Formats: sequence, C-alpha cells, structure tokens
Amino acid sequence: MKQRVNGILPPVTTPFRNGAVAYDALAQNIAKWNTTGLRGYVVMGSNGESVFLTRGEKLKLVEAATNALSSGKLLIAGTGSDSIKETIALSNDAADRGADAVLVLTPSFYKEQMKSAAFVRYFTEVAGSVRVPLIMYNVPKFTGVTIEADAVAVLAEHENIIGLKNSSENTAHTAEIIASVPENFSVLVGTASVLYPGLAAGAAGGILALANIAPNECVELQRLIGEGKHAEASALQKKLIPVNKAITSKYGVAGLKAAMDMLGYFGGEPRSPLAPLEEKEGKELKITLRKAGLLD
Amino acid sequence: MKQRVNGILPPVTTPFRNGAVAYDALAQNIAKWNTTGLRGYVVMGSNGESVFLTRGEKLKLVEAATNALSSGKLLIAGTGSDSIKETIALSNDAADRGADAVLVLTPSFYKEQMKSAAFVRYFTEVAGSVRVPLIMYNVPKFTGVTIEADAVAVLAEHENIIGLKNSSENTAHTAEIIASVPENFSVLVGTASVLYPGLAAGAAGGILALANIAPNECVELQRLIGEGKHAEASALQKKLIPVNKAITSKYGVAGLKAAMDMLGYFGGEPRSPLAPLEEKEGKELKITLRKAGLLD
Amino acid sequence: MKQRVNGILPPVTTPFRNGAVAYDALAQNIAKWNTTGLRGYVVMGSNGESVFLTRGEKLKLVEAATNALSSGKLLIAGTGSDSIKETIALSNDAADRGADAVLVLTPSFYKEQMKSAAFVRYFTEVAGSVRVPLIMYNVPKFTGVTIEADAVAVLAEHENIIGLKNSSENTAHTAEIIASVPENFSVLVGTASVLYPGLAAGAAGGILALANIAPNECVELQRLIGEGKHAEASALQKKLIPVNKAITSKYGVAGLKAAMDMLGYFGGEPRSPLAPLEEKEGKELKITLRKAGLLD
Amino acid sequence: MKQRVNGILPPVTTPFRNGAVAYDALAQNIAKWNTTGLRGYVVMGSNGESVFLTRGEKLKLVEAATNALSSGKLLIAGTGSDSIKETIALSNDAADRGADAVLVLTPSFYKEQMKSAAFVRYFTEVAGSVRVPLIMYNVPKFTGVTIEADAVAVLAEHENIIGLKNSSENTAHTAEIIASVPENFSVLVGTASVLYPGLAAGAAGGILALANIAPNECVELQRLIGEGKHAEASALQKKLIPVNKAITSKYGVAGLKAAMDMLGYFGGEPRSPLAPLEEKEGKELKITLRKAGLLD
Repeated sequence: MKQRVNGILPPVTTPFRNGAVAYDALAQNIAKWNTTGLRGYVVMGSNGESVFLTRGEKLKLVEAATNALSSGKLLIAGTGSDSIKETIALSNDAADRGADAVLVLTPSFYKEQMKSAAFVRYFTEVAGSVRVPLIMYNVPKFTGVTIEADAVAVLAEHENIIGLKNSSENTAHTAEIIASVPENFSVLVGTASVLYPGLAAGAAGGILALANIAPNECVELQRLIGEGKHAEASALQKKLIPVNKAITSKYGVAGLKAAMDMLGYFGGEPRSPLAPLEEKEGKELKITLRKAGLLD
Repeated sequence: MKQRVNGILPPVTTPFRNGAVAYDALAQNIAKWNTTGLRGYVVMGSNGESVFLTRGEKLKLVEAATNALSSGKLLIAGTGSDSIKETIALSNDAADRGADAVLVLTPSFYKEQMKSAAFVRYFTEVAGSVRVPLIMYNVPKFTGVTIEADAVAVLAEHENIIGLKNSSENTAHTAEIIASVPENFSVLVGTASVLYPGLAAGAAGGILALANIAPNECVELQRLIGEGKHAEASALQKKLIPVNKAITSKYGVAGLKAAMDMLGYFGGEPRSPLAPLEEKEGKELKITLRKAGLLD
Repeated sequence: MKQRVNGILPPVTTPFRNGAVAYDALAQNIAKWNTTGLRGYVVMGSNGESVFLTRGEKLKLVEAATNALSSGKLLIAGTGSDSIKETIALSNDAADRGADAVLVLTPSFYKEQMKSAAFVRYFTEVAGSVRVPLIMYNVPKFTGVTIEADAVAVLAEHENIIGLKNSSENTAHTAEIIASVPENFSVLVGTASVLYPGLAAGAAGGILALANIAPNECVELQRLIGEGKHAEASALQKKLIPVNKAITSKYGVAGLKAAMDMLGYFGGEPRSPLAPLEEKEGKELKITLRKAGLLD
Repeated sequence: MKQRVNGILPPVTTPFRNGAVAYDALAQNIAKWNTTGLRGYVVMGSNGESVFLTRGEKLKLVEAATNALSSGKLLIAGTGSDSIKETIALSNDAADRGADAVLVLTPSFYKEQMKSAAFVRYFTEVAGSVRVPLIMYNVPKFTGVTIEADAVAVLAEHENIIGLKNSSENTAHTAEIIASVPENFSVLVGTASVLYPGLAAGAAGGILALANIAPNECVELQRLIGEGKHAEASALQKKLIPVNKAITSKYGVAGLKAAMDMLGYFGGEPRSPLAPLEEKEGKELKITLRKAGLLD
C-alpha cells in the first residue's frame, strides 16, 4: 500500500570543487541537515544541476548521500529524462545504491505532443519497470510543458506511482490535482513561494530549494498548519517570500549556493555554463538573508 | 482615508437580446443578487464583454446598474484602456452616472515596454485625474502582461488607488503583493480558482466570475476563513473548482452565460465574434453544475 | 474587382506637441514623404500609437492626412478593435473623412477563443458593413494571437477584404498564406526585417515602420526584386536590419520618433505611458543610423 | 581553415523494430539516399528521436551510418545536452566512430540564465575539447530558448565552430545572423518551411526533415537559387509547404515516419511516449503527399 510522503525535503545542491563533484562536501551538508526535522533529501533534482552531471557522477552521488543519511530520512533520486529506457535503467541503478524512491521529470522535448495521453504512456511504462516508488515531477518553467489534472488522476491509480512534485506556482492547478487524486497519493509543493497555500489545500509536503538554507522554517510552516495556526503560517510564508525569490527566480542555483556559503553550508559555484553571482548580487543577497532573519 | 473593499463582487455579464444590450435583463439579474451577501457589482469587466461594447452602451450600462442597486452595495465600473486620456474621461463619465469606483486594466499593447516604470506612470496619471477611487486590474491571460509587486507597492501609496484585482492564478505573486502593500490597500482575488489561498494569504475579497452563479458559496467561503474554519473553506474551494473551470478557462463567457440561464438568471448569448456553447458543451456544463450542487 | 495594393507604405507616427496631437506636424511629414515613391500612408497603426488616441483625435488625424495627401497616394486608416460595432462605425467615419481603405487588427482580448472560426465571423461581419475596402492586420507581438492561413484563405474570398498586413517575422507563415489566397489578394509585409523574403515569396508590398525614415531604401528594395536583382536586394536587406531593429524591437516607437527627429522629420516624444529614449540610447541610435548610411 | 557546409542534409529518422533500433533499416534508407544529391546525413537530430536513445544506441547508430555512407557524403552526429562534460565525451566517441562533425543543441534547462554569455561559455568550452568541427543547433520550439546574433557572432570566430543550424522560422533572425558572421561560417536552414528565404538570404544549405522524403526537391530548390532562378525556387517552395507542415508541426516525427513508409523508405513507428499516426491522419497525409506530387 502507498505511504504518503509527508514533510519537507530539500532538492540538495551538488557541490563542486575545481569543477569536480565534491562528494565529501555533500556528506557534510547532509550531516548538518540530519539534525533538523527534514523528512529526507532529493539528489539530482533541478537545484542539484542534474542536467550537468554525467551518469557516473549521478550514481556516485546517490552512494554518497546514502552513506551520509541518518536513520529514518528518505533518499529520493531525480532520474527522469525523455528516454523511457534510460529513465528505467538509471532509476534501478539509483535504487540499487540506496534511493528509496525516484523523482521523474515529465518528458518535454516534443512539446506539441506532450499531452495527457503521452504522459500516461510515459509514466505507466517507467513506473512498471522501476523497483522503487516513483514520484512525478512537473516543472513548467524548466520543461515548457504542464501535466494536467486528468493525467495525474489516471496515473495516481498506478500502484508504483506515489506522488507528484508540482513546481508550478499556479495554486489552482495544485488544488485541482489534489481534488482529483486519492488520499494516499502525495502531492508535494515544488517551491516555497506557494508552500502555505499548497499545504492549506491539502499537499502532503514540499520539495523546496529553500529547505537547503532554511530547513527549520519550512518544517515549522508545515507544523503550524497541522496545528491549525493559519495566521502564523501565513505570516511565516510572507517572511520567506523575498529570500525564496532571491534563491530561485532571481538568482537561480548560483544564488542558492551563495546563500549556502553565507549560512555555513558548502555552497560553492554552479557548473558552467551557469555563472556564480557577481559581487554586487552577493551583497544584495546577504541583505535579503538578513531581513528574513536567516543571517545575523 | 482609504477604505478596504472587503467582500465578494461578481464581474456581471452584459445581457444581449437580438444583439442589443438588454438593460432590463441586467436590472433583473441585479435584483436577484441584491438578496445575497455580495458586496456589490462590477460592470464592464472582462466577463462583461467590455471590449465588445461601444462607449454609449457602457455609460447606459452604468446608469442601469446604478438604478438597480440596493442600498449599501458598491458599483464598480471597468473603464481602462491603453489611452490615459480616454480612461480618465470614461472613468469620470462613469462616476457621474453612479460608479463608486473604477477598475482599470493595465495598459498592454506595447508589451515590451509595459514594465514597472510604465505602469507607475500610467496609473499615477489616471488616478490623479479620476474623481472616484481606482482599483488596478492585472489579468495576464487577456493582456499578456503582468504588473510586478514593486510597481504595485509604489502605486499603493497613491491616495486615490485603493486596490488591485489580481486575476493571475499564481498565488506566489498575490502573496508577494500583499506583503508589499499597506493594510488598507485591498488586494482582490480575480478568479475563484484561487479564492481560498488568496484570502488565506490576506486578500480583502474577490471579483469573481463564479459569483455571478454561485454568490452564496463565494460569500460563504470568505466567511469560513474569517471564522478560522480553514478545513471547511478548503473543502468548499475544492467543490467549486470544476464549475469555476467550466465557466472560465474551459468555456469562457459563453459558458458563464449558459450557466446563468440554467440557474434562473438572464444569461443569453455572448456577442460576436464569441460563439454560444454547442449543445454537447451545454450538456456537459449542466452535469458539472449538478455535481457541484448548484443545480438540482 | 479587387486591386492589389502594390508598394510601400509607412504606418506614420502621430506627432505630439505638449501632449496634444500636432496635426500640422503630420502634414509637414507627409509633404516630405509625398516626394518619394511611397504608395501611400497608414494612419492610426501600431506605430501611430493608435491605442493612445481618443476617437475624436483619430478622426481629425484622418482629415489632416487627407488634406496633406498628394495625388495618387493611398490613405489607409487603422480602425480595428475587439468591438465589431465600434470598428464598423469608426471605419465608416474614417472613410467619410477620406480614408481609401481601413486596416483592421485581429480581435484579441479573449485569446483562447480567437481561433479561425472567430476570426472569420469577425472580419466577415465588419467587412460586410464598411464602405471602403478592408485590409486585415496580424501582429502577434502586440495582440498575442495569430490568424492562420486557413482563415485568411476563407476571408480572402470576401469581396471587400482586399489584403492582409502580416507583422509576424515567421516567413513560413507568410509564404503559407500567399500560397492559400488568390492573386489579387494583397499580402503585405508588416516589418522591414523580413521585407526581402516576404516580397520574394510573393508579397505585394509592405507597411513598414522603417518607411517613415528610409522610404527610398524600402521602395528601392522592392524595385530590385521586380527587376530580378536578388543579390542586390538581399544585400540591401542586410544593411537595413540593424536600423530596423533599433526602431522596432529594441527601442520601439520612441526610437522611431527619435530617428525621425535626427533625419529632418517631426518625431517628438511618444505619449505616456511610453517614455522617450534616454540620452545614451539616442547616441547609440545615431551611430546605428550612420552605419546604415541614413545619416551623415 | 573552415570549409562551408554547402548543401542539403536530412536529419535522418531512427528506425525501430519491436522497440529496438533497426540498424539495418537505417543502412537501407541511407543506401537509397546515397543515390541523390544530398550532401550527407545527420544522425541523432531532433527527427532522429535522439532524446529517446540510450548512449549505447547512439554510438551504434553512428557506426551503422558510417558503414552505410557512400564516398563524399558527410556524417554529422547530434551530441548535445546541457552537460558540457557529457557533450564533449559523446562528441569524441561519435568522432571515433566516424562522425565528420557534431551538431550541438543550445543548453536549455535553466532557461532564465541561458542568455548570450552562457551560450558563449558553453560552446567555447565544448568546441575547445571536441576533435571534430562543431555546428551549433538553435531550435526554440523544442528548447524554449533562442541564441541571439550577438552570441553567434562571437562564437563564429572560434576555429572549431563551423556553423549554426537555425530551426527558427523567423527569417529576420536568420538574416541577422548571416549578416553578423564571416563568409566561411555556415548558417544552415533548419526547416524546409523557410528554405527558400533562408538560402536567398545567404544560408549555406539546410538540415531538413523534409529531405528524408523529398531529397531531390530540396536539392533542386538550392540549385535553382544558385542559378538565379528565384521565381522557380519560390514556386517550388510553395509546393513543398503543405507537405513539410504535415511532417513537422502537424504530425511531427510520427508523420515523417509514416510518409517514409508510403514512399518506399523504412519509417516505422516512433518510440513511446510518441504515438504513431491514427488511421484518419494517415489518410490525410497520403492526400497531402499526392497533392505535392511526391506520391502517385
């Protein structure tokens, strides 16, 4: 039977040192996060610069994360690509190295054809051959496509598809999906900018870039809703909006990594062709972190 | 001093009979709505097919609505166009005929240039010459442009700009705006698909197509939030999503008018080049209304 | 019987002096253009800031242009809006004041519904009630909608619809339309950036912002193609690309007007909320004009 | 010194039999194309369903194509992905198996950051480490990003970057690029819908889905332009537009493969999640091929 994935997970950044993956730095970051209320970790997500990693690097990353995990934390690996064959292979290889579940992007290259029927075919074929549970991943700003509620409703019936991460900021879309799926199917908010409304609409949790640098605040926001403290939750949401914007739409992965460096994690530079923040941007980011109370 | 526009208002449809505006039918609809908890009415909004009306028809519409209004209800007139000069003139003519406030679209023709500075110039000039309070109107799906929170924050300081109707379903955008403006500036949700999350984030109310056919439900949803009954509010939101989708993104104004006919209002056909629903679509719509409990 | 509208026409800018339309300045500009090989003029087009003009200003503009016209030049007035009723009324009023034809924008507010059937309804109804020939106007960058070749093919059979101005830079779209309409239906290129490929594909001429400041060059390009001198035409096209970009996508109407001032026309400032060029932009524009050989 | 890649190349489809790559069928198709005036072949392009292939399948495909090649034909392999490291590795592996050059997609995942500076970094790093010449590949409809002329101009100076395939139908963009690069840098048209205007603007040739099924017509069109026969070239272009539309924007790869089956090539079905044509679509396609004179 499906288990709901309740809670907050960061899509962890991939640390690089001199251009190579710094697996030890990932372990250090995870050691810090292990002390928080995070439900687990997602490696090889969008904020993990998955598209810049080789297959070999990806599998080592899963191994490194598995070894650094504390008891009870979940490990989810981002393994999706347009190729069904490769997605299945990579997912099973990740499972063999310790991933508890896989997060699989909607296929997106042939955008005109990527409608509900194609999504149903894709996820049904992948989920049927992967040995761990699968969470679908909708992120229109990176893929240019959107999976609609009707397709999610069909796929939610598949025994090996346990959830959907929705990174759209369209809360109507999220609410429509939640209204279309069974209780035990986990809809996860994909960006902290809509964490409060998403959870209030019934989402099970969130996979949030912001959880890399503000894990406690994200966990706290969910706790407040659980206790019915909506005013406090909404107030916390407002406080987090500017810092979340800085590390996502404004500065992207480079901003997230710079913030990590400021807050005692290993951030480092993104991989080329992404560029690190310019000095002026870094100063603005620092001010934003201070205003949000994340930095003294 | 600015007064918050709390509550729910329908952007009322414009009834046509044999191609001409049926002012009497509008009066009949308003008479029905007068018995509900609606805060007032918006004429000449997007759902009022404002873009299909002549200037003369618009002013008669304001007169007809003013005459039909019951005590205490607000009348807001949609008067915006790209032309500052014409927007001021039409706004004042509408005010002379009874409009309590005007709802003014963001200018949008020269999309590349319609950034924050242009929006600030436009609304400052318009608001400075209009004799009633002004509510800004952001509706990206029709205009192709979006007013960002930084521009709203500046304009919210203008003494004659009292609010913003935001029809974007991006709740992060709405929350960011709410966090950027003073308490007495009214952010109004522009579509019922995000009514619950918008109100929960601090919106003052909503201008909602759905309020044409389900005024009590929309008012009830806001009441529930006021009483802290979030679970009930969220459940009601879910129930309203399919019917709201049918009368907005799925079938548009033609769907909204068909639903009005089914529910005892005067709906009628939209003006050309919009087309009325096909028979099959009407049947589907009826089923959707029944499922939502709006129709027996 | 329909006559092809061969040749080049500028969508003339609307001059403002202290915020009011400077009709005399328009007359002076036209007097200069009358000495060139331009086929005529379009008033109240996109570059004429039509959306910023009141109805009264528009009609005076037609009168002023009519009075300034030299023998044999065509006068076309942009009269389209989403409202069929108003478009017909304004078109006939413009015709009464001397317009030889009207240029009518595709309706665009209800974008989801603006498909081929709606366009066919709209233009059939408008063209059937306007007393001068009608040219359709497709400009996706401002309207967010596109009229497809199948709808143009149907409408090209209407006796009062004589052409289409296509401002899309997608030459495949233009070529598909040309292949779908009769010989006597005039497809007009809508931007000088694709003048050569459009004419080479069979377009009858062009309505071009660039023709405001480089009328002779635009006319020359068409003459070269008529004489089969494709290499020269293509070379001239390349020379015009940077200056055309500066006065359209880069700086818009403000850039076009600034260039007019530099070249001895009355340009002036655009109407608010558009802003005039900044000093630095003006200097860059001057360099671009010099490189293109338009300015010494 | 760079050599211009003149001529027409099909981005060859990848044949599948029972879900596996049918390398022998590719060889048969190439044997047929070897008798035409095609300049060579592109494997693993967008029409080759590259995104559905595993790394192992890709390398075998290069080997199979190399073995099937007739003397003098070029073999180009599509090897690009967001990962610089993997793109270099795959490119060199393809070169080792016989690829004469590689076609490398613009990176596109982090769309907001994929501006000129990022493209310059990406292609400079890749081209500096690949042992065969590199052709850049711009295809906005699949990637959601566009490389601008200023970045192409910089990259055209790199000794190992010999050209750009531009699949945008915006001929202004293509002409601007051609005007910005040296003579020996090859701009290749990426879709037959704009073959004539692209070549007339100075493009060196085309990599065209249509060349899979109409190689002679595409080659003929380029020959006509070379001989200055623009009227004939433009007429041939018009004839090819409907069939090209059918196998690209209308039916995509499934349509192209169905057309190949109708014309004596091995087409077969696309890989899931793409779906084969429905029967009705196949009939329409057949009519389109007949009208274009490609099928008796």
